[in-house]
Amino acid sequence: MTDDEWFVTPCPPPSAAHGASAEARQNALTKPKGALGVLEHLAVRLAALQQTDRPRADNVRIVLFAGDHGITAQGVSAYPSAVTVQMLDNFARGGAAISVLARELGAPLEVIDAGTLAATEIAGVIADKPCRGTRDFSREPAMTMSEAQYALAVGRRAALRAAEQRADLLILGEMGIGNTTSAAAIAAALLARQPTDLAGAGTGLDDGGIKHKSNVIATALKLHELTHRDDRPLKVLTHVGGLEIAALTGAIIGAAQARVPILIDGFIVTVAALLAIRLNASCSDWLIYSHRSSEHGHRLVLEALGAEPLLDLKLRLGEGSGAALALPIVRLACALHAQMATFAEARVSEAE
Amino acid sequence: MTDDEWFVTPCPPPSAAHGASAEARQNALTKPKGALGVLEHLAVRLAALQQTDRPRADNVRIVLFAGDHGITAQGVSAYPSAVTVQMLDNFARGGAAISVLARELGAPLEVIDAGTLAATEIAGVIADKPCRGTRDFSREPAMTMSEAQYALAVGRRAALRAAEQRADLLILGEMGIGNTTSAAAIAAALLARQPTDLAGAGTGLDDGGIKHKSNVIATALKLHELTHRDDRPLKVLTHVGGLEIAALTGAIIGAAQARVPILIDGFIVTVAALLAIRLNASCSDWLIYSHRSSEHGHRLVLEALGAEPLLDLKLRLGEGSGAALALPIVRLACALHAQMATFAEARVSEAE
Repeated sequence: MTDDEWFVTPCPPPSAAHGASAEARQNALTKPKGALGVLEHLAVRLAALQQTDRPRADNVRIVLFAGDHGITAQGVSAYPSAVTVQMLDNFARGGAAISVLARELGAPLEVIDAGTLAATEIAGVIADKPCRGTRDFSREPAMTMSEAQYALAVGRRAALRAAEQRADLLILGEMGIGNTTSAAAIAAALLARQPTDLAGAGTGLDDGGIKHKSNVIATALKLHELTHRDDRPLKVLTHVGGLEIAALTGAIIGAAQARVPILIDGFIVTVAALLAIRLNASCSDWLIYSHRSSEHGHRLVLEALGAEPLLDLKLRLGEGSGAALALPIVRLACALHAQMATFAEARVSEAE
Repeated sequence: MTDDEWFVTPCPPPSAAHGASAEARQNALTKPKGALGVLEHLAVRLAALQQTDRPRADNVRIVLFAGDHGITAQGVSAYPSAVTVQMLDNFARGGAAISVLARELGAPLEVIDAGTLAATEIAGVIADKPCRGTRDFSREPAMTMSEAQYALAVGRRAALRAAEQRADLLILGEMGIGNTTSAAAIAAALLARQPTDLAGAGTGLDDGGIKHKSNVIATALKLHELTHRDDRPLKVLTHVGGLEIAALTGAIIGAAQARVPILIDGFIVTVAALLAIRLNASCSDWLIYSHRSSEHGHRLVLEALGAEPLLDLKLRLGEGSGAALALPIVRLACALHAQMATFAEARVSEAE
């Protein structure tokens, strides 16, 4: 294995012993067995991942990767590319949805320019990028292999910073005008589905816009010979991917290798999770799916991953906002696990 | 109208002007229009109910009503009746799920014995009850009209205390071994559905137990002449209801009359909401449905009410736990509404 292949190193498995112990505790707490539903599974999974009797989601880091997309030249987004960089400024100044959520949740937000068109540094944003935006993948590959490798490593570096900060959980977010087009193309190639199954409204296309977006993707998949199920995730990433999507993929694998569970956000981050799992299946144990978005293709990608997300609030914003909204559920699952009395402690009669 | 008919006094309507103003603000915030999905509707609804530009869910009160059920003599629950009073003690001592959630959320929990079998006062529990438990409704009406009127007023008193404390939002919970049987009977009578459509596992019956529970309800509905859709909610309440269910019903109407929005919990509280709406349709504007539980009949009652709850986490605990788990979503919806920058403030380009 060369240094360029760090992402295939296996991630550690969850601790079955800690999982079993947490499950026994759940069954002893003063509630009918299973009555806390999904929250019981969450506490047990986190206990196994964190190798502890008392799972926590106190120290949570939010990392947002931004990138620009050459494919926007084909008119696939309701917003101009300039919005990506304008929003970086909004993230840093605290006015975006994820900024508000990070503040309310006490979860530090790190914003990384992983490949936007910005020519200069933006205050409050970490610039760590191989190039300024991807190429128009309706004409040529979106990025070179070395750009893709760089962007994967951007994500890994961010994940390792979170691990050094002893994060209990990592939330990943993204911003990039055009990135639902790239994500839909990636998912179509990896799952061998039609672009019409995966292309959605993104930031707000009408039906005609969505049809055009599907056509652009279909033509590009033919150009890159990706019309059949492709098991070469790096080829798919370089040909139709995005730099922030590569960074997300690297962050997912890097965090899982470093024993940090990841709360997966919406369509873009879920497609990055699909890429990550295709590159390194052992990372899948570390992923907790936060929500089902209203972006058309998300349901299909979640199904392909066998994922049952926590929330379904008809969100379609990205930024990590859906994962942030699910964080209180995870925290309360941990609090219930740690603080509820057992039947014995409370002297409550058990089922007859 | 006599004093006994306070519950038919109309509840005030939401403020359309404040709703429209909140909607305009949502559309100006730095996100694609509608991208925050359900959270946008939540903020707009709360703005209209609270008659404000900045809806809040900071000061939230949780009120839990407990009652015992004579119908448990027919073997309809997996737990003995004694558990109701044992759990009151657990609530007061902080070991139950709702106690943990109340603490974590900074929402004071008030526990009211609205009709348990307890013969003495329990420390930390308010006793406000017309009698000790209901009668076995497989043999006779569960309560007299004056007991029902008393229990409705218990709920109103609690709601008015919350209103005096200037609660932004009220969460209602319940505890009562046997109360899913009573709630299923009420819903079957009010919706003209078969008991098998509404009887579920409760605290953990097996299939045979659920079948027996359905049969007990079917026989009782015949005895009380409630086999056809009954539009006399007070008759349904007195014949097959519960004292804590009556208190919940009174609390819902009392809170709505006093302009306090209510976050509705699972099966039992939703059946109380159905009763409340049948008694006084104007209260329905004030109800926010928090979750879809895994108790069999809940989905059907929610559908009958046209309710789309916030969460679906396979909970079946009661106590108000599902509503408490949804509270952070409501709070974050308010924070996003108040704190996000507008396109103009952040100098972000709008859709092309």
